Amino acid sequence: MPRRAGLHPILQKYEQLKGQFKQNALSGDVTNVLQELYSEANSYLSHLDTEALTSDRLTKEYFAFKSNDGRKLSRAVNRNLYSTDPTIVLDFFDRIRNNDIEAQNVEEITKACYTIAIAFCSSIDMLKDNDPKTPGTFFEYFMGHLFAVQFGITPRNRVDVLNLDMRASLPTDFIFDLGDNRPKFHIPIKTSTRERVVQVWAHQRVLDGVYGTGRFLGLLSCLSETKLDHRTKVVTEICLPDQWRIYQLFISQLKRIYYLDMPVKYEELNEFFPRIHVKPFGEFFFEADELSL
Amino acid sequence: MPRRAGLHPILQKYEQLKGQFKQNALSGDVTNVLQELYSEANSYLSHLDTEALTSDRLTKEYFAFKSNDGRKLSRAVNRNLYSTDPTIVLDFFDRIRNNDIEAQNVEEITKACYTIAIAFCSSIDMLKDNDPKTPGTFFEYFMGHLFAVQFGITPRNRVDVLNLDMRASLPTDFIFDLGDNRPKFHIPIKTSTRERVVQVWAHQRVLDGVYGTGRFLGLLSCLSETKLDHRTKVVTEICLPDQWRIYQLFISQLKRIYYLDMPVKYEELNEFFPRIHVKPFGEFFFEADELSL
Repeated sequence: MPRRAGLHPILQKYEQLKGQFKQNALSGDVTNVLQELYSEANSYLSHLDTEALTSDRLTKEYFAFKSNDGRKLSRAVNRNLYSTDPTIVLDFFDRIRNNDIEAQNVEEITKACYTIAIAFCSSIDMLKDNDPKTPGTFFEYFMGHLFAVQFGITPRNRVDVLNLDMRASLPTDFIFDLGDNRPKFHIPIKTSTRERVVQVWAHQRVLDGVYGTGRFLGLLSCLSETKLDHRTKVVTEICLPDQWRIYQLFISQLKRIYYLDMPVKYEELNEFFPRIHVKPFGEFFFEADELSL
Repeated sequence: MPRRAGLHPILQKYEQLKGQFKQNALSGDVTNVLQELYSEANSYLSHLDTEALTSDRLTKEYFAFKSNDGRKLSRAVNRNLYSTDPTIVLDFFDRIRNNDIEAQNVEEITKACYTIAIAFCSSIDMLKDNDPKTPGTFFEYFMGHLFAVQFGITPRNRVDVLNLDMRASLPTDFIFDLGDNRPKFHIPIKTSTRERVVQVWAHQRVLDGVYGTGRFLGLLSCLSETKLDHRTKVVTEICLPDQWRIYQLFISQLKRIYYLDMPVKYEELNEFFPRIHVKPFGEFFFEADELSL
């Protein structure tokens, strides 16, 4: 791919990632470019100052990267999940290549993934003005690659609808089809959900309606739900647990919701009956084979 | 309300509209400020040049307002629906006041409403950069006022959910509750729908699930589905009729979809079985009493 003159190395690598993911989401080339992208972002961020933020959750501590002129802040970064030592991340990339991600434990996997994702997203916050699309697409491709590696297949993002006189093709989030007599996974990937999350339950309902309930297992996968007030420097977690319960009761049932930075209010949904299973993303790799049992 | 120094008269009136609508969506003050707002917008636009656009629909002709330096274009305006003569619009405002909107016919009502809505939205396109929120909120209040006048009640935008051990309050689009033994209306109002429209069917499904199917009638109300390519000056209608059919089959059933500028592809949905009833907005006033039959 020709290098675009003037494009920051992080954005150049990002363009490369997009091309390679579209070609083959499962390929080792995607792993390699993700690692290079992480190294670029990590080195870029290491030259920036940071500023401590105030969190509305007692158990969580956040900071933001700050431009050298002090005028620009990145999104909120969870201090306990962001690894300044790259070892755990480089180890994770090696595990992807060896197809034994489970050699790290849930906390290590979640931390490595959080660090990779937030390093890229924070870099974009600093390099571009008000661009939610680039971090969103990156996160989709990064997580999509991990699901592809674990399932050993590439995803689709359309399904055919053949129903009596109707023949249509429906755009969806990632669909991983493990083949006959095995589950199909419907995997929406979002940096954060907010009020638009009802879409996810609605698309699950369409899949249930068109193909029959239980044929597609929904695994919503998210980065975090933090919101940083740039004036007060306060980080809040925007959560709507009552609405999630209503969607899960009345629209459709998601099998799992995974987070890299698990919101406190959604973690509590594991305790209410009927439960919604919200888990740290690292757990996926240990339960992937049992989700259809 | 104190006038904000420096704010354009259109934006001042808009602030007034917001305040008055929130106070009482049914009040004659809302009608008055809507009329004043229309007059301000109409006079502002009458000093601008226009530019003809190319439409992808043979039956439709569009133009855009153009800033005097020629650098800025408004959204696409349907030439057959936009009335340059204000008589039909002023007549419509009088009808609102007399509560006899049906004295005009379907075409006249639709044309008057389209003119009022597009005059404000086009003015905002010219006065502000990249602000979809102001036209969206205006359109919600304008249409909300018309529904309120026709039903003779003010809307709510939350409903309580009481279900076994659960007690929650769900934010919704406008809800008009006509009382015992009469229908309740669920009325989402959008300047355009695009891919996020699945939310509307999902919210309808939640209402059906929580209260029972048939208790709430869904009336989605939209301005248009046009998209203007500012480089080529081509107007296209972005429509997803196959997806609408799938949503209507598998998520929930909307009773009506009303448009001010009816998209050709959605008009055709009236002809497919099972039908989705997509109509010019003016028809609402002639069938409002029969929608629950």
